[in-house]
Amino acid sequence: MNRTQADALIERIREHVLAALPPTTTVNDAPELVQEFWELQRAYPERPGKGLRGLFTVLSCVAHGGREEDAIVPAAALELFQNWVLVHDDVEDDSDTRRGLPALHKLVGVPVAINVGDAMHVAMWRLLMTDPTPQRDALVREFLDMIERTAEGQHMDLQWIAHGTVDVSADSYLSMVERKTGHYTVSAPLRLGAIAAGQTPDDAIIRPALRLGAAFQIRDDVLSLTPDTDGSFGKAYLGDLIEGKRTLVLALAMERLGADERGRLTDFYQLSPDAKTDAAVEDAFGLLEASGAIAEAQRVAERMADEAIAQLRDLLPASDAGQVLLEEFNSLAHRTR
Amino acid sequence: MNRTQADALIERIREHVLAALPPTTTVNDAPELVQEFWELQRAYPERPGKGLRGLFTVLSCVAHGGREEDAIVPAAALELFQNWVLVHDDVEDDSDTRRGLPALHKLVGVPVAINVGDAMHVAMWRLLMTDPTPQRDALVREFLDMIERTAEGQHMDLQWIAHGTVDVSADSYLSMVERKTGHYTVSAPLRLGAIAAGQTPDDAIIRPALRLGAAFQIRDDVLSLTPDTDGSFGKAYLGDLIEGKRTLVLALAMERLGADERGRLTDFYQLSPDAKTDAAVEDAFGLLEASGAIAEAQRVAERMADEAIAQLRDLLPASDAGQVLLEEFNSLAHRTR
Repeated sequence: MNRTQADALIERIREHVLAALPPTTTVNDAPELVQEFWELQRAYPERPGKGLRGLFTVLSCVAHGGREEDAIVPAAALELFQNWVLVHDDVEDDSDTRRGLPALHKLVGVPVAINVGDAMHVAMWRLLMTDPTPQRDALVREFLDMIERTAEGQHMDLQWIAHGTVDVSADSYLSMVERKTGHYTVSAPLRLGAIAAGQTPDDAIIRPALRLGAAFQIRDDVLSLTPDTDGSFGKAYLGDLIEGKRTLVLALAMERLGADERGRLTDFYQLSPDAKTDAAVEDAFGLLEASGAIAEAQRVAERMADEAIAQLRDLLPASDAGQVLLEEFNSLAHRTR
Repeated sequence: MNRTQADALIERIREHVLAALPPTTTVNDAPELVQEFWELQRAYPERPGKGLRGLFTVLSCVAHGGREEDAIVPAAALELFQNWVLVHDDVEDDSDTRRGLPALHKLVGVPVAINVGDAMHVAMWRLLMTDPTPQRDALVREFLDMIERTAEGQHMDLQWIAHGTVDVSADSYLSMVERKTGHYTVSAPLRLGAIAAGQTPDDAIIRPALRLGAAFQIRDDVLSLTPDTDGSFGKAYLGDLIEGKRTLVLALAMERLGADERGRLTDFYQLSPDAKTDAAVEDAFGLLEASGAIAEAQRVAERMADEAIAQLRDLLPASDAGQVLLEEFNSLAHRTR
């Protein structure tokens, strides 16, 4: 599979997501506001995203001996999962933008955005329920587990911010991020693909898959602290720092800095985003950089990714699709923007 | 079935809800914050509610020839549905209290509360998936439809407030409230009970069921405008007025008042809750009362309820359980606190 074929597959999955969110309800005479409600559910899916998780799901299915079409439903449901979670995450983080446009709650307010996300969540289950294969129940169980773990990770992340917990250890950070992004970015796509191919997923893939997912996130966090990114990951330069996200960079910096500097960084992270002046952001960034934590996090992420990909290479069935999947993982782990 | 037996059944359903929300995750070595996350999901279900929708579901099942135990899973899932929706609704309405205690987001903040509600939503589907009967897929479809309609109604309600739309017609109000509360309060319990009993639900019950659900809500709205309630419906006296909820009372008052008074009422409803002084609330309440809309809404609700119950009496299978169900409906429609 070349890039053009992968892009075509991503587009096919995206069309499947949009088809699960019809522009009008089944009630033909629905009030205008109800029609608007369904349009709003399409807002994020209509903004082109990378679609990587859906792609990973289909590639895993083919690597496990299935056909592409066997995995279109779980792949689309996984993309729809990400879309509704992003609607809620953007409220929870009070993010300004998403995929280059205003976050949904900035357009329609927090109450409406929460409710739209809930309806998209329901649409995800409806889509998954349309899977006509005998694997449907196993796919559903995988989604149940995945969403639980993701929400657990999100809870840890949110509470660290709410409680002003700044001295998060590297281990705690990894425990959070494996839950929050590792499951739905790598582990679940690999497992869903195997299930869609009629196989029982090998539990041994879970550990390296979660490490790889964490490595992707660390790479993302490092890029958010690297000048010259152009916002193409939906995050402005230093955006995470202003939002106060706990990262491996922060954990490593707290280990490395002296007491005074650690205090300054702690004070900064306990400020609300609005209270962070440009000078304060510059100072905090300077502390992270001077500690060497940014470069170290980058090295950790690369090592974790390389080890995980090597393990997955041994665990996944050898196949062309498996090779494409591993290459996708590799380029994501080493991307520079 | 007498009151004691009904209460025992409600308690049994509630235990089933709590069993679906284990206090710790399946991961034994889960971080403390993850354990806290699961505890928070139990917050609302542990606060005793009326449990009527679960009761209606089981009674409908028995009325349709099934056994109580056939409907425990959908009954518990319906109660769990209400609990997660309330967590999100309380954020959306910025409610202060729920069942006599602070609303969840007042305890843990909006971001955490949204995420807890999402996890409870997932737990609801997991619970429903445990239904071992051949009816499971039909129950799932009923839940999908029910949640969609409920969210549509909530969207209408939220947008009227967000847009400052005050001149909502009685028809529009009924269209909203049938969606927002009619489906999950009456129509879905009756249908779920029939399905759990192995029957195909009679579509003719939908219309009167939705009317009855709307009548319950109108009664609730009127009670919120009636002195001497003691907050036992979870709503302080005049709470809806301060929140700015659109009600049939408001729709009827807008029809009846002269232009000047209509303008005063419109101005009041367009204020944010915080901006509503005691004097302004008193003035608005005076306008609603003087218009005769409160008494008229009460008459409309009673007529709608009586007609709907009479129709349901003809449509439901004649049985002891059906008789108990109709009596429950009747006492709810005519409750005075």
